[in-house]
Amino acid sequence: MKIDLYLTPAEVTEEDIQRSTTIVVDVLRASTTIVTALARGCWEVIPTGTIESALELAQKVGRDAVLLCGEREGMKIEGFDLGNSPQEYREQVVKDKILILATTNGSRAIVRAKGAKAVLVGSFVNFTSLLDYVVDVNGDVVILCAGKEGKFSLEDAVCGGMLVEEMVRRSNRWTPNDAAKMALLLSKRYSRGLLTMLRNCSHGKYLRKLGFDEDLRVCAQVDSIGVVPVLEDGRLVKASP
Amino acid sequence: MKIDLYLTPAEVTEEDIQRSTTIVVDVLRASTTIVTALARGCWEVIPTGTIESALELAQKVGRDAVLLCGEREGMKIEGFDLGNSPQEYREQVVKDKILILATTNGSRAIVRAKGAKAVLVGSFVNFTSLLDYVVDVNGDVVILCAGKEGKFSLEDAVCGGMLVEEMVRRSNRWTPNDAAKMALLLSKRYSRGLLTMLRNCSHGKYLRKLGFDEDLRVCAQVDSIGVVPVLEDGRLVKASP
Repeated sequence: MKIDLYLTPAEVTEEDIQRSTTIVVDVLRASTTIVTALARGCWEVIPTGTIESALELAQKVGRDAVLLCGEREGMKIEGFDLGNSPQEYREQVVKDKILILATTNGSRAIVRAKGAKAVLVGSFVNFTSLLDYVVDVNGDVVILCAGKEGKFSLEDAVCGGMLVEEMVRRSNRWTPNDAAKMALLLSKRYSRGLLTMLRNCSHGKYLRKLGFDEDLRVCAQVDSIGVVPVLEDGRLVKASP
Repeated sequence: MKIDLYLTPAEVTEEDIQRSTTIVVDVLRASTTIVTALARGCWEVIPTGTIESALELAQKVGRDAVLLCGEREGMKIEGFDLGNSPQEYREQVVKDKILILATTNGSRAIVRAKGAKAVLVGSFVNFTSLLDYVVDVNGDVVILCAGKEGKFSLEDAVCGGMLVEEMVRRSNRWTPNDAAKMALLLSKRYSRGLLTMLRNCSHGKYLRKLGFDEDLRVCAQVDSIGVVPVLEDGRLVKASP
């Protein structure tokens, strides 16, 4: 069975993913935020591709019933309730709420992947839970790195590469594509110093400039949360164990 | 000064390249073919984005004055004179001819890069000549990997990474972006076994299936040709030394 890793969403066609379980990785920060929000008891997270579709959906569901979440250029969107910092997603804020999430890279990548056999969300914080879930999957797996504004993003490729490395280590039934092999090299290079990698990668430097240094520490904590988000009818919920 | 490497043409915007010397890398096989054709004495190589624009241009220049060259899915385009195998580009075939080249990845990437400050063509066969040319360049450098049908392509990233590695080794004035650092890891992993890498990468396997195994050997020969193609008014010619 194949593990096909893609470094940017633009590389993926409908055909590439329709028969595959697809893991969307956006370490900084949408994946980490989604995992955190579900762990803190939100009802579901609905990813949208644009601010407009988030607002429309909020109108439909009822503005009071939802939290509008998301960022543009790393900052909370005007008029929205929450930004994209996992630390904002505390239990008292999100418990039993419906979250509508519009981020630049992650939520768009999830929307793009919706034609897949199944869509999961991966990050460092839910690494082993996701891995345990995926190794039992039947059929091909796609790892879709969200990247940053259509470009390669080191942290997503490192996380994807760590998944590839562990999947291949646990079972010899997986055949990685060229990008997955490349990501595996990144895993060997960076997995022992994730926080340093996050602080020095382009996106991490940008977030530090905005004052989100503490977010990097949160996003680097491997296995801090045991939740696997799965897409059901366009809504991300906790996968049943 | 920056070295920004991009793994696929879709990642690059006009803004990313307009002030940079841009090196387009399509190891299998357009870059290698262009370098070979210029070395064998063709007048110029005009890259086009589509078969239609190649045919139109041939009409305009005069069909007898040109050689129509290119491939789709690795095979020569019907009605064209030459495919995309560097071995076809012998002196008695191409000498003093105008070549119009329509390949799936390389010639399109060159057309896409045409807004750059300067456009060069890189491959293993002209590696050191290109490097000598680039280290004297003033300002930022972009390495644009052509990829394969919009997707990541290992061989282009390895060649790009070798360029990054040598540029950084020769001068400390270069600051590589995240993708360039990643490609540098690939260089360290694969540069000592290029033919093996080409035979085992996805695109190389495909070309072997089509019977182009000998092309891989040709494309793996580092520094076999001392020509640097440079784009002038939409035409690739030899850079003056």
